[in-house]
Amino acid sequence: MYKKKLKGEKMMSGIAKTPEPPYYAVIFASQRTEADKGYGIMSEKMVELASKQKGFLGVESARDEELGITVSYWDSLESIKDWKDNAAHKIAQNKGKTEWYQNFSLRVCKVERHNFFEM
Amino acid sequence: MYKKKLKGEKMMSGIAKTPEPPYYAVIFASQRTEADKGYGIMSEKMVELASKQKGFLGVESARDEELGITVSYWDSLESIKDWKDNAAHKIAQNKGKTEWYQNFSLRVCKVERHNFFEM
Repeated sequence: MYKKKLKGEKMMSGIAKTPEPPYYAVIFASQRTEADKGYGIMSEKMVELASKQKGFLGVESARDEELGITVSYWDSLESIKDWKDNAAHKIAQNKGKTEWYQNFSLRVCKVERHNFFEM
Repeated sequence: MYKKKLKGEKMMSGIAKTPEPPYYAVIFASQRTEADKGYGIMSEKMVELASKQKGFLGVESARDEELGITVSYWDSLESIKDWKDNAAHKIAQNKGKTEWYQNFSLRVCKVERHNFFEM
């Protein structure tokens, strides 16, 4: 999975090591169609590309049979907008709407506080 | 899975049907230990219990081998605090720390905007 390919501590544990709040989160919940049609590859590429964007702080992702949730973290609303407008990302967004997703939701949030627990 | 047991439209599609922003989200990301030790049952019970709390707006959850993400939605910070302080939930929180989770993160966020897409 792409999670292991990313370099740096940000993805070491699957849990994003974000800096002190406030910062921003984009919560993307989705239900897939049955067709793969390049989804796996595109999904990896998008995470790789997002992680190179200015203002990217980390990403967390989980998917089971019913639902997928990806939360990406950003330093500002401006960085989120830049990522939304990224050309390659726009192509993926269109493919998402036409081919990969039955339903999805996107929420833009301000993270006000966080806690980490490590055994 | 518990997702199918919950009544009402809030959980129909796995994607929470939340009201217009602003509202609040708690993003809980976790890595499990190998031991089950009652995790499955407790996890179901906690979602059921949360959904009866005042101010609860919905929940989304996905888990794969690497990571679990549960996002619960609330009308206010006060409702989140009440849920945090719920007696049965406190017992589950302790079991989580001592038995179920290797690592977890908890983030409290204000949802500023959202979009839904349905095919």
